[in-house]
Amino acid sequence: MIEMPLIVQKYGGTSISDTVRIKKIADRIINKYNKGNKMVVVVSAMGDTTDRLIKLMNELSSNPDPREVDMLLTTGEQVSIALLSMAVQAKGYKAVSLTGSQVRIETDDRHNKAEIMNINNSRIFEELEEDKIVVIAGFQGINSRNDFTTLGRGGSDTTAVALAASLGADRCEIYSDVDGIYTTDPRVVSEAQKIDNISYDEMLELASLGAKVLHPRSVELAKAYSIELFIGSSFNNQAGTTVGGINRMEKRNNVTGVTHDKDEVKISIEQVPDQPGIAGKLFSYLAECGINVDMIIQNLQHNNKNDITFTINHEDLKKGKEHILAAVEVIGAGNMEVDTAVAKVSIVGAGMISTPGIAARMFSILGQEKINIQMITTSDIKISCLIREEEADRAVQALHHELL
Amino acid sequence: MIEMPLIVQKYGGTSISDTVRIKKIADRIINKYNKGNKMVVVVSAMGDTTDRLIKLMNELSSNPDPREVDMLLTTGEQVSIALLSMAVQAKGYKAVSLTGSQVRIETDDRHNKAEIMNINNSRIFEELEEDKIVVIAGFQGINSRNDFTTLGRGGSDTTAVALAASLGADRCEIYSDVDGIYTTDPRVVSEAQKIDNISYDEMLELASLGAKVLHPRSVELAKAYSIELFIGSSFNNQAGTTVGGINRMEKRNNVTGVTHDKDEVKISIEQVPDQPGIAGKLFSYLAECGINVDMIIQNLQHNNKNDITFTINHEDLKKGKEHILAAVEVIGAGNMEVDTAVAKVSIVGAGMISTPGIAARMFSILGQEKINIQMITTSDIKISCLIREEEADRAVQALHHELL
Repeated sequence: MIEMPLIVQKYGGTSISDTVRIKKIADRIINKYNKGNKMVVVVSAMGDTTDRLIKLMNELSSNPDPREVDMLLTTGEQVSIALLSMAVQAKGYKAVSLTGSQVRIETDDRHNKAEIMNINNSRIFEELEEDKIVVIAGFQGINSRNDFTTLGRGGSDTTAVALAASLGADRCEIYSDVDGIYTTDPRVVSEAQKIDNISYDEMLELASLGAKVLHPRSVELAKAYSIELFIGSSFNNQAGTTVGGINRMEKRNNVTGVTHDKDEVKISIEQVPDQPGIAGKLFSYLAECGINVDMIIQNLQHNNKNDITFTINHEDLKKGKEHILAAVEVIGAGNMEVDTAVAKVSIVGAGMISTPGIAARMFSILGQEKINIQMITTSDIKISCLIREEEADRAVQALHHELL
Repeated sequence: MIEMPLIVQKYGGTSISDTVRIKKIADRIINKYNKGNKMVVVVSAMGDTTDRLIKLMNELSSNPDPREVDMLLTTGEQVSIALLSMAVQAKGYKAVSLTGSQVRIETDDRHNKAEIMNINNSRIFEELEEDKIVVIAGFQGINSRNDFTTLGRGGSDTTAVALAASLGADRCEIYSDVDGIYTTDPRVVSEAQKIDNISYDEMLELASLGAKVLHPRSVELAKAYSIELFIGSSFNNQAGTTVGGINRMEKRNNVTGVTHDKDEVKISIEQVPDQPGIAGKLFSYLAECGINVDMIIQNLQHNNKNDITFTINHEDLKKGKEHILAAVEVIGAGNMEVDTAVAKVSIVGAGMISTPGIAARMFSILGQEKINIQMITTSDIKISCLIREEEADRAVQALHHELL
């Protein structure tokens, strides 16, 4: 007996924003089904459903109970799965919709940002056995008390990848209104090219740096379970980007992409006493306050005092500024300076850092453009420079032009 | 230890059609809670939510799978319970929402028209123990396969009554935009008066005859479990109507109400062979075809042939006309005549039929109005006459004026 391949597909809210689009998605699913695949399809809430529900919620409460927020928002995907199943059935195919609670996508108790603990496959396999196209609500699960939970940002992508891992799927396809991963933001650099293949780590760096196609969380999950992801547009049939499916041995020293992130704030704390563990104390405190620190540099000054400079995002500055000021006082540091007009530009590529001179080349290109580098961080697959925000687009253009 | 009284309330879709109304309903619930009651609140979908979902559904399928219809429609009440819980919480009170599946309102498998088999009280009692106001989705349940079901017409009322029975509630209050049961339709007869107390059986006759305040199904359930129902408006605090809470021994011969039903079609089948069991054969066949027969009369003619006349509603005529024609052929009858311009007027009152002369008075009143009676049926608490449709309002006015 030959096993039919099992494909997990995920369609975002824009792909199913109205019934005309839902019918087109039904056609796409049926097309793959007719080629001899078992189909499990994950969908988000339709178009602006979530915004509409949140508007109602805000009219009632400024600080709604996270459990009730999940009760409210999980209806969005439930509407989608019912309608998509009906659309598939109307074309003469068998389909069944399942909510997160029906599948039993078991999560922890953290409403609005739950993590998947376990997926029960039995109902899905039962339905697949009956040749049905199985349509599953993304973004949602159920906790140990049978209360509905949501997975937070990137939730539907995460549902799709987790299902692919749990079901042992042969392929996981993530469809949105973007037709793949590009070497840089096409709105900034017209020469930007679609990337055919990219490693998990490169994708992680690109995603977290601003290429908002796939949430890092779902990429991490895909990497952990070696699930190859296909990223494509639901509006056309062009080839997209495959994530994690290639062996990069032959081309390790290429730059894969150039990104920038304008959501950076530079915080400089001056005259931090040079005591062992003081930096640890500072950053532990910030972590406890939920402030996510990105780049960090520390310079020892002559007077046995340090300057510590780091970056956070604008949201964390807004909600955490008092915590940072308190931290400065506790560690006995001097003045604090905040600069919100900065941006980070990065080049990403698997094993790139081992290529001699790649960092130097990046700095030279920026130097030729008379762009001053304020901070530098490097990892195995990424080199990032903090520069002035108004120079970010020009920096990305120059780096992309020279390195790709 | 003194047990606090437990009240089950139900609010219909009009009562929670927007967030302004939801806040008002929250106030009403909190008001009763603050008087020392445990509160379990059943709600329907908001205002026109169901219509909006059905519109989407119709754009996708002319004949949607009933299972998927239930998957779609159950989101309506889920939105309501989340929002109402948030509204209660925003006023500083503890609340929790539960869907039919979370409570485990177990039903049979008949999607779109399921019947409740069993209700699991444990989660509700747990939440009540924590002093929470418990908000439960009406109209919905779960079958043995954990698929969502809906209860069909009158579903939310039925949920409320079933919960009141299952929880052993002290009171069951059904709120809508109507402030009680009237002696007749106030739009037809300006003298119509609100009824303070009514028996289950009278309510059943009034409800099924057209006073569309409370679905007969929920009244039957209330009768079976001796649950006293309070019917009132969610828009004011006026006294409503109590159903089933009184002993009518003293006032058995009063007429309680006058109703009319214009949704009647008279079917006359002529020259039915006078064979034993032929009427049974005819009506069994119609029942199998899902055609609901209301009034029936049969006249034996001289030639050993019968005329059989019966009434059905317009919907059943539309979908069942071919079945009826087939039946006429099978039983070897003659012609069939259909008259859609008829209406049924009825007087209802507990034990009324045992009052000598009450039927005669009804016929006299109609006679004085020169209204011809085409068919008559009687039950223990109801006398109905089929008349011409255009005379129905006049008949109701005259009967109400003379008898109430």
